Amino acid sequence: MTDLDTFFRPRSVAIIGASPSRLNLGASICLVLSHLNFSGAVYAVNKDALDVHGAKGYKRVQDIPGPVDLAVIITRADTVPDLAEECGIKGIRHLIIESSGFSEGGLPGAALQQQLQQVTARHGIRYMGPNCLGVLDTSSRFCCFFGIIPGKYDEAFTTRKQGVASYILQSGGMGALIMDSLQTDVTGIHRVVSIGNKEDVDEADLIDYFSQDEAPVIVLYLESVKDGRKLMDAARRTTIPILAFKVGRSSRGAEAACSHTGGLANNDRIFDAACRQAGIIRLESVTELHALPKMFTSMPLLKGKRIAVFTNSGAFGGVAADLLSQEGLAVPQFSETLVTQLRSTGLLYNASNPIDVGPGLSMEAFLAIFRILLASDEIDGLLPVANVWQDVFIDALKELMSLCREYGKPAGIYIPNATERILEIRKKHQLPIFESPEQAVRGLAVSLLHHGYLAKKETTR
Amino acid sequence: MTDLDTFFRPRSVAIIGASPSRLNLGASICLVLSHLNFSGAVYAVNKDALDVHGAKGYKRVQDIPGPVDLAVIITRADTVPDLAEECGIKGIRHLIIESSGFSEGGLPGAALQQQLQQVTARHGIRYMGPNCLGVLDTSSRFCCFFGIIPGKYDEAFTTRKQGVASYILQSGGMGALIMDSLQTDVTGIHRVVSIGNKEDVDEADLIDYFSQDEAPVIVLYLESVKDGRKLMDAARRTTIPILAFKVGRSSRGAEAACSHTGGLANNDRIFDAACRQAGIIRLESVTELHALPKMFTSMPLLKGKRIAVFTNSGAFGGVAADLLSQEGLAVPQFSETLVTQLRSTGLLYNASNPIDVGPGLSMEAFLAIFRILLASDEIDGLLPVANVWQDVFIDALKELMSLCREYGKPAGIYIPNATERILEIRKKHQLPIFESPEQAVRGLAVSLLHHGYLAKKETTR
Repeated sequence: MTDLDTFFRPRSVAIIGASPSRLNLGASICLVLSHLNFSGAVYAVNKDALDVHGAKGYKRVQDIPGPVDLAVIITRADTVPDLAEECGIKGIRHLIIESSGFSEGGLPGAALQQQLQQVTARHGIRYMGPNCLGVLDTSSRFCCFFGIIPGKYDEAFTTRKQGVASYILQSGGMGALIMDSLQTDVTGIHRVVSIGNKEDVDEADLIDYFSQDEAPVIVLYLESVKDGRKLMDAARRTTIPILAFKVGRSSRGAEAACSHTGGLANNDRIFDAACRQAGIIRLESVTELHALPKMFTSMPLLKGKRIAVFTNSGAFGGVAADLLSQEGLAVPQFSETLVTQLRSTGLLYNASNPIDVGPGLSMEAFLAIFRILLASDEIDGLLPVANVWQDVFIDALKELMSLCREYGKPAGIYIPNATERILEIRKKHQLPIFESPEQAVRGLAVSLLHHGYLAKKETTR
Repeated sequence: MTDLDTFFRPRSVAIIGASPSRLNLGASICLVLSHLNFSGAVYAVNKDALDVHGAKGYKRVQDIPGPVDLAVIITRADTVPDLAEECGIKGIRHLIIESSGFSEGGLPGAALQQQLQQVTARHGIRYMGPNCLGVLDTSSRFCCFFGIIPGKYDEAFTTRKQGVASYILQSGGMGALIMDSLQTDVTGIHRVVSIGNKEDVDEADLIDYFSQDEAPVIVLYLESVKDGRKLMDAARRTTIPILAFKVGRSSRGAEAACSHTGGLANNDRIFDAACRQAGIIRLESVTELHALPKMFTSMPLLKGKRIAVFTNSGAFGGVAADLLSQEGLAVPQFSETLVTQLRSTGLLYNASNPIDVGPGLSMEAFLAIFRILLASDEIDGLLPVANVWQDVFIDALKELMSLCREYGKPAGIYIPNATERILEIRKKHQLPIFESPEQAVRGLAVSLLHHGYLAKKETTR
């Protein structure tokens, strides 16, 4: 398995098809690697042997002196099999084939893909793609995505965030949406892999590989599943939460996905059942691809379904209770003892569940309530839904983060403010705030789901 | 019915309980009215007859010289019945009672509410509340919401936006969330009414009233329904789209709602069926309260279920097709003729439905495609899902707005960019862009639903 390491931290990489001509896609990769100060050697292969953004130019890979760990091929599809052959002869055992025009485009492309498969098999080459972007790894500072604006994702490469998610995506466009969205969110990125048509390296290989260094969460976006058993076996082997969105619930959606990355339509219900058996958390929207990982990277797991709702805006108590019930979570009635304890903290509008604290509560009162709830054996987790019209509530939420860790119980946080303000507060204070009450409740639900999967995995071992 | 007019454009209003003391809620109303340059006379009633933010002070309403159209009462609950009596004697026939502590708080409050009901009935007084914020009307510049920061909503009072929605809400907090959210959206606000415990004036009265001036859309947030038949009759009488979110799908949610505005739990399924019969569009989340109205204020109605998906980011074709299928809409296969027409516009990745235009298409090509689709009798509406990494796409969407009006077919627009960027583009260019593909598809679905309701209403007349 560990040979996949070369895809993520190559000591030397050749970008085949990178030339200094305008709008050249390979050149954009050389530029990003230079911008990132990637520590490995970078070579550009083009017909005129021209240097590209600091990458020494060669006419062919065999002209490059010394060994090459990885080649990225980004040329016309019909040139790819021969180039792969040359890579094999040069002794390159890892390829990322970004060119499109293979099985996603109909019969002629499918024949090319088969040809490629034969060449790589003969040379013992592992490869990603075709029709992909390959790898972005913030720890090794390696990135072979084409078309990325240098500097745009600098923050992802430098900031130490609370958690680091690894993404396996069957679409480059989805990667862009996720990375853009995470710029105002708390989830840090470890790796984004765009696997495209995934003729060789697939999501299962990558789950196995990512499991070795205990990633806090793995997120999948799939348009097709080629080898369901392999994927489910990989999922069963790991205890890392796996979140997966798959296109193709409808027949028209499945058809569209296949024309994008050349897979075959899968029976969605079978996939659903298989996910439940293998312990994969199925996502309900593409938004959840970037919204839900923070529940795993910044909060303890939810270990039971009893949730205390906590609001300073009356209407949201009812809204939250509805959503929790819908997701199979509970809004338990508090015992008299607990209500009395809560009342002692100050002037609450409503000390039963959902708790309505009304406006004007002090920081001390907030924290006292949080402590009482987290310490109570009647409650497994919190759903704070509070308009942050006062700064005191932001401060209270910051304290809540450490209280959650202290008591080993999570909070799914939502603030009923305009989205603009949510994004601003979340980014500034690095708080794991969800953008809607639905998302916060889903965060709690998937946390409990993973807790259940873990228990099942432990029993079956 | 027209006597409700006084609530929205009073010539004179007394704020009972407004005093210059710090944190006085009535004073915040005087301040806002002064900030808005409200044209009517404003009086403050307090025990020392002190002026408040330009409102002349009187000790009691009967001391105010000349007639008073409307009184806003914001004092301790137990003082309200007597104050209402004084208003009745003064000849005031419209009250907005903002004080809380009535039926939402248990038995003593319920008794007060009954007492209030007797006084107002004797004097022939119509009133809003208790436990409400009353009215905000951007056309008359009247606002009696307490606690609003002067200037915060100036844009709503001045900008001419594409459409003006009227909101009827059983929660002030929800009003704040909606108004905050609409600041980065295209939907203009006509009126926001917070009806609280709605002992007298309720959502049905307001639907009737709003129907008179042909509001483009009415939006309801309900925690309880007191008189279901009255509401459904009002809904049946109007052809204006009514969007309604109601708390209380679950028993715990219904209980929480009742402790907030003092209603009785309703059977959710019965409410659901009644909405379908009366032509009320039921919303699925509080986010939809502000997200969906723009579909009615800026686009023609969808008159059939055949949607053409249009993307420049392959993955979203499949995602969109799944969502449309889920919502009962169709992603029809195009005829050969239509595909040929589409191909003639330029280099498309995929000219079948979902259309994938790939990157690098020109403005002319975009518009040519839009025109072909909108003119086609195979298509009832569009779902453009396109990453705006190029400005040309923003320009194309602007043109699409007028094309939609020209052809009488709507587009549910989503751009798969980070939310931050969506908000920025939507606000800057005043484009009705939804924040998720789910929202855009729901926008199309509710548009078609209303079209069906209209047809049904016409038949039954």
